[in-house]
Amino acid sequence: MYLTQGLHRALQQLPDEVASIFLGRRRTFSELGSRVSRLAGGLHRLGVKPGDRVGMLSLNSDRYLEYHLAVYWAGGVAVPVNTGWSAAEIAHALNDCETRLLMLDDRFLDLVEDLKQRSKLLKTLIYAGEGAAPSDMLSFEGLIADNAPVPDACRSGSDLAGVYYTAGTTGFPKGVMISHQSLYLNAMICLAEGAVPMRCIGLHAVPMFQLAAGGQMNAMLAGGSTQVIIPRFAPLAVFDAIAAEGVTQASLLPSMIQMLLDHPQLERFQLNSLKNILYGSSPISEALIERAARTFPSVGFTQWYGMTELSPIATVLPASYHTGKGRKDGGHRSAGRASVCTEVRIVDALGKEVPRGTVGEVAVRGPGVMLGYWNKPAETAAAVRHEWMHTGDGGRMDDEGLVYIVDRIKDMIVTGGENVYSVEVEHAVLEHPAVAKCAVIGIPDEQWGERVHAAIVLKSGAKATAAEVIEHCKTRIAGYKCPRNVSFLEALPLSDAGQVLKHLLRESFAQVRNRKVG
Amino acid sequence: MYLTQGLHRALQQLPDEVASIFLGRRRTFSELGSRVSRLAGGLHRLGVKPGDRVGMLSLNSDRYLEYHLAVYWAGGVAVPVNTGWSAAEIAHALNDCETRLLMLDDRFLDLVEDLKQRSKLLKTLIYAGEGAAPSDMLSFEGLIADNAPVPDACRSGSDLAGVYYTAGTTGFPKGVMISHQSLYLNAMICLAEGAVPMRCIGLHAVPMFQLAAGGQMNAMLAGGSTQVIIPRFAPLAVFDAIAAEGVTQASLLPSMIQMLLDHPQLERFQLNSLKNILYGSSPISEALIERAARTFPSVGFTQWYGMTELSPIATVLPASYHTGKGRKDGGHRSAGRASVCTEVRIVDALGKEVPRGTVGEVAVRGPGVMLGYWNKPAETAAAVRHEWMHTGDGGRMDDEGLVYIVDRIKDMIVTGGENVYSVEVEHAVLEHPAVAKCAVIGIPDEQWGERVHAAIVLKSGAKATAAEVIEHCKTRIAGYKCPRNVSFLEALPLSDAGQVLKHLLRESFAQVRNRKVG
Repeated sequence: MYLTQGLHRALQQLPDEVASIFLGRRRTFSELGSRVSRLAGGLHRLGVKPGDRVGMLSLNSDRYLEYHLAVYWAGGVAVPVNTGWSAAEIAHALNDCETRLLMLDDRFLDLVEDLKQRSKLLKTLIYAGEGAAPSDMLSFEGLIADNAPVPDACRSGSDLAGVYYTAGTTGFPKGVMISHQSLYLNAMICLAEGAVPMRCIGLHAVPMFQLAAGGQMNAMLAGGSTQVIIPRFAPLAVFDAIAAEGVTQASLLPSMIQMLLDHPQLERFQLNSLKNILYGSSPISEALIERAARTFPSVGFTQWYGMTELSPIATVLPASYHTGKGRKDGGHRSAGRASVCTEVRIVDALGKEVPRGTVGEVAVRGPGVMLGYWNKPAETAAAVRHEWMHTGDGGRMDDEGLVYIVDRIKDMIVTGGENVYSVEVEHAVLEHPAVAKCAVIGIPDEQWGERVHAAIVLKSGAKATAAEVIEHCKTRIAGYKCPRNVSFLEALPLSDAGQVLKHLLRESFAQVRNRKVG
Repeated sequence: MYLTQGLHRALQQLPDEVASIFLGRRRTFSELGSRVSRLAGGLHRLGVKPGDRVGMLSLNSDRYLEYHLAVYWAGGVAVPVNTGWSAAEIAHALNDCETRLLMLDDRFLDLVEDLKQRSKLLKTLIYAGEGAAPSDMLSFEGLIADNAPVPDACRSGSDLAGVYYTAGTTGFPKGVMISHQSLYLNAMICLAEGAVPMRCIGLHAVPMFQLAAGGQMNAMLAGGSTQVIIPRFAPLAVFDAIAAEGVTQASLLPSMIQMLLDHPQLERFQLNSLKNILYGSSPISEALIERAARTFPSVGFTQWYGMTELSPIATVLPASYHTGKGRKDGGHRSAGRASVCTEVRIVDALGKEVPRGTVGEVAVRGPGVMLGYWNKPAETAAAVRHEWMHTGDGGRMDDEGLVYIVDRIKDMIVTGGENVYSVEVEHAVLEHPAVAKCAVIGIPDEQWGERVHAAIVLKSGAKATAAEVIEHCKTRIAGYKCPRNVSFLEALPLSDAGQVLKHLLRESFAQVRNRKVG
């Protein structure tokens, strides 16, 4: 199993069918194959050897698809970079896994000098935008034009396919190593569970550096489907793409579904080509999924739950649980049951399975479990114990095997599909000269799933406004990690052992609306 | 990936749903899990260690399903034995892979003494029938009743799961070694391609020792489906099972479809629960599949092509090719295109891909390729070259990647889903004292796909009737391998190099009807 396999099959079976559509630009599988094999030739000429990492820092585009396939074809390893990160964070990831080549589009050109400063290893920059390449960079189109196709390296099975950086439990980004086989089987899960049907017309609205989008991409490749790509999520862009291209399948975050439903022009568009929506990455409210089902009555909604370390799908809530009997029994409130390739257990601190209905840690076994964290054997051993990935999520399982996620055991916030680790935000806040103590929590947010909230105790006599604290954080960490709200307290609630009782804070602030801070 | 994984998931998600139905006996997944884990305990007590082979010689039953799962659960390797074989052939297979335990049902009790004589390794016989066990045998039910459950050995991935004996190119049965991963992914192909939907009610009419049935069994386990099992194919038994149990999916051989359609009582039964028919193992005539589609207008027909060495599916012809445009373009005459997990090429004698439309050998790569032939490294190396399994089938591929099987490069006949190698039959015929020369070929047969035909040159002055030759063969090889027709010729057509020109014989006898010999 290797990730260019779907492309090879499509070249054999569907050479003239449309593989990708990006802002009206259509490429057939035949064109895709030609571009990918030539770009791989270019990567070889640049010295990429089996297992070498190649980064990508870009908004969504057809080139993002070609990047993935060409890196695999060349025998390399993809390192898709979070577009929300600061130059310091990006450089940390690239340096950590020794990435020497980086592709990037126009949106990130102004980071180049900073990145060069911070990453001495970064030798080659490849411009993957629509215009002419800057003079100090190679060009994506030039590499395709100037190189002959090379044979597919066909790395496969447990060979490393990608390193996906994710904020770890300790707050420092860790490189999650995922194999070809893990990603291929995640695609099989999508096909077998009916979440991404074969020969569909699927929409990429989720950022393609996220494995949620990568999973959809691989499932569509395996199924010979057409990938409709928009640069970034925006309701009108989604509506336009569905109506113009007859999109039948879309992968969305709950926050995106919310924004689509809230949009005043929703009714104006002809969206009835849509048959399947796959959603996940963060919890969804019952009210939201109900509204979505009413708005799109002929769409089958499939929910997934998982994490990057699981390639990413662990559980699936099939469309049948969103309606009729499945819904009536309350199954629609769960995150689904173990997928066709996965085993899921709720375990206690010793890794022993707990009785049904008891809350414990969600543990997952199967071919999707990561190869490990890049260069972090201790963290890998802590997370994957006896083949079981310990997710850090608290959950319970009912008698039908449905998993209900009730809490995060690890102190992590998921906002807009991104993981934010409280400890990292707390470090940033504590660097402010006026701050004595700080606890960062996630507060339920209808649009983003959760938003970052900082509870602060100021130093005696010191002064600071919420806006000042937030501005301070923005100089240190990515914007999406910065607190959206700040509360100033006299003291933090502590346990006898001196630990901050975050659940008390969460209860206190659960009702804080998303109002302007100041 | 391991083959009890589906059972574990079903135990978690569907403990009270029906796992198997055999002659009215229904067992839930909870009962299945209990029986399997206890039977595995019994196998452990009998000394079965990881990788040990356990044979099964039985008509279809719910115990055949339990046998497979218990052997895997115990860490063993399944050796399902061809029920059409003679004691000599069975003993050859069991001895070849050193099988010490054999389960068998009432139908095969009269072979026991002969088997014991021929196989000194065979230490333990387990009676898997409905009555009381003979005094010199252990009992399947006794092993379940008398042993406590043991934990699942969870052998997985490339661990050996089964040895399937198949007549090889040389006519001597070879043990095809198939891994857990290969069988699991074959199940994923069935699910992803829509051939065996999740949560279906599927019918086992194909003998369960065949991998065609094994593939369906594993797909149903992975999908949490109900397995309806009949002891052996018979039209009325199939009709009864469909009508009584609301069967939605059936896996059938073309010869079985023919017999169902020909049956005078077909119209009497309520068969409209049926939604999917998966067929393969041998070619189907256009007339037959047309008649089938007219008779079952709401059934989606999916064809597969493959072989035991491929676990077994290589290509799939989805339902869409059986109707509408796919059919109009002639795709329904093909054996389908590479499945979602498989690569297929048509190659020349050097293994180089030939142009589309050119006839060559069908070669297949993917996770389904066997681990090898048991203890036959030379034969393995000849069949699997640079990861590609060379099927021995001649075929061509069209511009859509559809594969048309046009001839067998290996001299093999497929009759009723069974492989018969001409050379083996020729050896048997030639042992008749009156026979000077013999060439055995397959002739198209509407019911069986092909039937075995022997062209014979008698020794000067010697005499023999067709019936005598056939009776002679029956004492040496399995009944289904024996010639159905015999022609006596003055001479065999030979090439300049002295080789029998079998294609000339095939042309001469293609029109011989299935008349009585004598």
